[in-house]
Amino acid sequence: MTQPRAWVVTIGDELMRGEIVDSNKSFFSERLLTLEIETVRHVTVADDPEAMSEVLRAAVANARIVLVSGGLGPTRDDLTTEVVARTFGRGIYRDAAVLERMQAYFRSLGREMTPNNAKQADFPEGAEILPNPVGTAPGFLLQVEGSLLFCTPGVPRELYRMVDEEILPRIEARLARPGVLRTSLLRTFGLGESVLDSELADLARDNPAVTLGFRTQFPDNLLRVVARGSDRAQAELELRRVVDVIRARLGPLVVGEGERGLEAIVGELLLERKHTVAVAESCTGGLLASRLTDVPGSSAYLLEGAVVYSNEAKQRVLGVDPALLDAHGAVSEPVVRQMAEGMRQRSGADFGLATTGIAGPGGGSDEKPVGTLWVALASAERTQARRYQLMRDRARNKLLAAQIGLEWLRRTLLGIELPDETFPRQRGVPR
Amino acid sequence: MTQPRAWVVTIGDELMRGEIVDSNKSFFSERLLTLEIETVRHVTVADDPEAMSEVLRAAVANARIVLVSGGLGPTRDDLTTEVVARTFGRGIYRDAAVLERMQAYFRSLGREMTPNNAKQADFPEGAEILPNPVGTAPGFLLQVEGSLLFCTPGVPRELYRMVDEEILPRIEARLARPGVLRTSLLRTFGLGESVLDSELADLARDNPAVTLGFRTQFPDNLLRVVARGSDRAQAELELRRVVDVIRARLGPLVVGEGERGLEAIVGELLLERKHTVAVAESCTGGLLASRLTDVPGSSAYLLEGAVVYSNEAKQRVLGVDPALLDAHGAVSEPVVRQMAEGMRQRSGADFGLATTGIAGPGGGSDEKPVGTLWVALASAERTQARRYQLMRDRARNKLLAAQIGLEWLRRTLLGIELPDETFPRQRGVPR
Repeated sequence: MTQPRAWVVTIGDELMRGEIVDSNKSFFSERLLTLEIETVRHVTVADDPEAMSEVLRAAVANARIVLVSGGLGPTRDDLTTEVVARTFGRGIYRDAAVLERMQAYFRSLGREMTPNNAKQADFPEGAEILPNPVGTAPGFLLQVEGSLLFCTPGVPRELYRMVDEEILPRIEARLARPGVLRTSLLRTFGLGESVLDSELADLARDNPAVTLGFRTQFPDNLLRVVARGSDRAQAELELRRVVDVIRARLGPLVVGEGERGLEAIVGELLLERKHTVAVAESCTGGLLASRLTDVPGSSAYLLEGAVVYSNEAKQRVLGVDPALLDAHGAVSEPVVRQMAEGMRQRSGADFGLATTGIAGPGGGSDEKPVGTLWVALASAERTQARRYQLMRDRARNKLLAAQIGLEWLRRTLLGIELPDETFPRQRGVPR
Repeated sequence: MTQPRAWVVTIGDELMRGEIVDSNKSFFSERLLTLEIETVRHVTVADDPEAMSEVLRAAVANARIVLVSGGLGPTRDDLTTEVVARTFGRGIYRDAAVLERMQAYFRSLGREMTPNNAKQADFPEGAEILPNPVGTAPGFLLQVEGSLLFCTPGVPRELYRMVDEEILPRIEARLARPGVLRTSLLRTFGLGESVLDSELADLARDNPAVTLGFRTQFPDNLLRVVARGSDRAQAELELRRVVDVIRARLGPLVVGEGERGLEAIVGELLLERKHTVAVAESCTGGLLASRLTDVPGSSAYLLEGAVVYSNEAKQRVLGVDPALLDAHGAVSEPVVRQMAEGMRQRSGADFGLATTGIAGPGGGSDEKPVGTLWVALASAERTQARRYQLMRDRARNKLLAAQIGLEWLRRTLLGIELPDETFPRQRGVPR
C-alpha cells in the first residue's frame, strides 16, 4: 500500500467571496500529519452543485482520504449531502434517531424545530453518521471507490471536535497500519521556524518511527511530534524519548505542551505557587494585562495593571523619579526598574513586571532604535532588568514584548535563567 | 462576452502542511469582487512541479483571470516561474533591469547578493513584469490561451500592494468594459452580516451599476460598495449616492470608511478635538488600552490605563466606595460610574471610560449572567452608564466590550446618541 494522501475540500459562497478567511484547511492538514498523512490538494468551491460534484469526483479519484467541510446546515444553500449522494450514485435516507435528537434539542431551548432543520438528519445511503458534540448537524463518512470521504459542518468549533474525536480515530483504524501513534504538541518561543527545523531535522531523519511538524502562531512556533510504536505503551515510550531529546536540546525554549498559550501556562504556575503579579506597561500598552486576563480565573493572581504611556503617569502612578526620566529617558534601565518596583509596592503583589520601549514606527534614535525594549521584574529579593532589540513593526513589537514579559514570569517561577539579550532569534529580528 | 470568472491558486508546502492559515485567497477574492469578478475556485498545491502544472492548466482552461501566489522566492522550492514557462511552452529570460535593481538593493544594505537571488530576475518569455514595491521578487503577467495569469510572491504584505497597484488596474484595462469603477469600504459595528445583507439587498438589486460585498472582522462587518459609471466622475457620483443611502439607513452603525479600525478612528477624533482619555478596565482586562495603543502616536491622547480586576484595586486605585461594592457588587451601575469618574479625576483626562462585567465562562448568576457588561463614560459635564448583554464566550466578550467602549468614545466625540441596550445585534448575542 502506498502512503495515503489527502484532499481537503471546503464549500461555501462566503469563502469564494473572501468574506472570511478559511482556517479549516490548515487545521485539517496539520491534524492529518499526526497520522503521517500528507495533504496534496486544498480546493474550495461555492455552494454550486456542478462545481461541488466535479471537485468531489476529482478528490476521490486522487486521494484515499477526503475531508470535506461546509454545506451541512439547514438552509437552501447547504447542498453537500444531496450532491455527495448524487455524485456517487447513492440514495438519501432520513435517520430517525438523529431527527429525534434534534427535536429534543430544540424542545430543550423551548423552541419548535423549523421544518428546514429536518434535512440535517438526511444522509447518503451507506454513510456512517459522525456525531457532532457541539452543534445540530452531524457529519458522515462514506466509503467510495476505495476512498474515505468525511463530511463535516463548516463551523470551526464543531469540526475541530469532530476531527479529533470521530475522524482521526476512524482513519487510523481503517488504514490498519502496524502499530499505533502517539502525538505531542510542543510550544516553543524564541527560535524562528527555520532554525528550529535545522536544529531538529536529524531526529526525524534518523528515526523512521518519528515525524515532526511545525506551525507558526506568532511569536510562538508549535512543534508537533508524532511517534509510532507496535502498541500504545511502546509508542508512548518512543514519544517520550523524542520529546525528552527535544527538550534537552531546546531547554527553556520549550515553554509548554499542548494548545495552551503562554498566558495560561504562566497563570497555572502562579496559581500553583500562590503568587500574585501586577504589571506596569509602557510600550506594551495594556497587551500584557490583556493576555493575562484572557485566562478564566486570572483574577486570582493578577492584582493590578497600569498603562503608563506618559512620563507624568510614570511619576504619578508608579513613583518614578523625574530626575531619572530627565537623565536617562523613559526607555532606560533605571526607569524600567522603578516602574517594576513601584508597581509591586503599590499593588502588594509578589511580582511587579514592567515594560518600556519604542514600539515604532516613530520615536527611534541611533541610540534607541525602534524595537528597543526594556523589561524589569521586581520581587521581594531583587529587581532584574534587561534590554532587547525587537523588530520594526509596531504590532509585532507589542506582541513580542508582551510575550517576553510573560516568559520572564514563567522562567522566574520555575527558577530558570532569564533569556539573554540575543533573545528572541526570530526571522525579522536583527542580530 | 460572458462575465469573467477567476481561479485563485496558492502554492507552498507550508500551506499543505497547515503550518500557516492562507489568508491570501480571501484577500484576492474580495478584491476581485470590486471589479465584479466572481472567484469560482480556490486551489492550493505543494511546491511540486507536476501538481502545479496540472492546476495551472485547469485554471487557464476554466477562468479568464488566474491569480497565483507563492513560489517566486530565491530558494530551490520556488518553482513558479519555471513551471509556468514549461506548462505553457515558453522559454525563460533574465531581466537585466530587475537584476540590477536587486543588486543595488543588496548593496544599499551593505550586503553581497547571493547567486540564488538572481533567479528572482527570471521571467517566462512574453511576460509583463509587475513591480514589487515592498520586496525583492517582482511578479508577472502572462497571457495564455485568452486568460490573464498573474503571479505574485506569497508574502501578504507584498501581494496586497501588488494587487491594488499592479493587478486590478491591468484587469480593469484588459476587460475593456464600458465605464470605470469606484469603490468604498464601509466599516460597520452593531449589526450581524445577515441583518446587514437583508437591510441593503435592494440597493444592489435595483441598481445594476452597484455591487455590495461583505467581509467579517469580528466584531465589525466590512461592507464593500462598488459603483460603475461611464467615466470617473459619474462612477464617483454613483458611489457617493449609494454610500449616502447606506449611511442614511444605517446611521451611526457605519463607524468609518477604509481599512482603519475603530481605535484609529477614535484616535483621529481625539487628536482633532485635542481631547484626552483615560481608561479603567475590569472585564476588558487591558484590551481597551491595548487597542488604543495599537495606534502610532496614541500617547498624545491616552493619558493612563488601569486594569482593576479586584475590588481592592477598584477601591485603592479608583476610589470606588466599598459600601457600593458591598451593596451592588462590582458589576453594577454605581461601581462603573465611580470607576469612570475616579479614573478621570486621577488622570486629569477629559474623558474617563470604564468597563465592568462578567466575561465568563464562570461567575454568572440569574441576575447577572455571563455576558453582562456595564460601560460608563465620565466627562466634565456628566457621567453616563449603560448595561449590555453580550455572549457566552470570554474572548468574544472581551472584544465586544472593548469595541463598545471605543464606540462610546466615538459617538460622544461626534455628539451622537449612545447605543441603546439592545446593542449590538450580532449573531450569537441573545435578544
